[in-house]
Amino acid sequence: MSDGVNRVHHINFLVRDLDAAEARYRELLGLGPAVRDELPGRNVITARFRVGDTWLVLVQPTSEEGEPARHLREHGEGFFLISFGVDDLDAAIARAEQAGGGFTSEEPRTGLEGWRIIDLDPADTFGALIQLAED
Amino acid sequence: MSDGVNRVHHINFLVRDLDAAEARYRELLGLGPAVRDELPGRNVITARFRVGDTWLVLVQPTSEEGEPARHLREHGEGFFLISFGVDDLDAAIARAEQAGGGFTSEEPRTGLEGWRIIDLDPADTFGALIQLAED
Repeated sequence: MSDGVNRVHHINFLVRDLDAAEARYRELLGLGPAVRDELPGRNVITARFRVGDTWLVLVQPTSEEGEPARHLREHGEGFFLISFGVDDLDAAIARAEQAGGGFTSEEPRTGLEGWRIIDLDPADTFGALIQLAED
Repeated sequence: MSDGVNRVHHINFLVRDLDAAEARYRELLGLGPAVRDELPGRNVITARFRVGDTWLVLVQPTSEEGEPARHLREHGEGFFLISFGVDDLDAAIARAEQAGGGFTSEEPRTGLEGWRIIDLDPADTFGALIQLAED
């Protein structure tokens, strides 16, 4: 057990057409079949591919509400965020706070498959959208 | 051996101040020591951290010339590109071309540590900067 990150847990890409993007990514990169999910709390549907010890997640907003839809409007399709895996999310949060890092919410939220996740404040990561995740 | 991608090989983040970013990322995420390198052909200096089977690479342009400097001017600091590892780069290129994918150069170039890398055309990946890499 460590309070540092141990792997890239998942990487999210925003797309407008999940069916088209899933087929394109699978063929271009030679990926296996995708797992489909939805996260009604974030207003998105997703298709994820296993790549090594990481998930490559394609994310399509299903409404104009929510952070993924807002990011798509402002930045277009492409990379959205990177999520680093940790053994113990509470310990990792405490370490980041001790290092002067902030988060965009007070409490972790629940992602796909029940992952516990929390987003670092992009002001503390030189603009990158970085998340911590515990399975 | 497969012609598909097998892991996230590295992920690049553009920063303006490598020393500050290296210290910040190490402390926030609880990372080990960074390896420093330079790539004169790309006009950058880099600091990379091992995270699971991936490299997290911080990239600071050292001149106004080159693609990393241009991307930093246009998009600011933050995520730059993701590089997927392959067993056989020539086979992976052939697969992607068969799937209708293009590349931004005719031939692979040499990255850090002698990695052979080639960039997919972002028009084929829904805007994401995606690279294939062979060690």
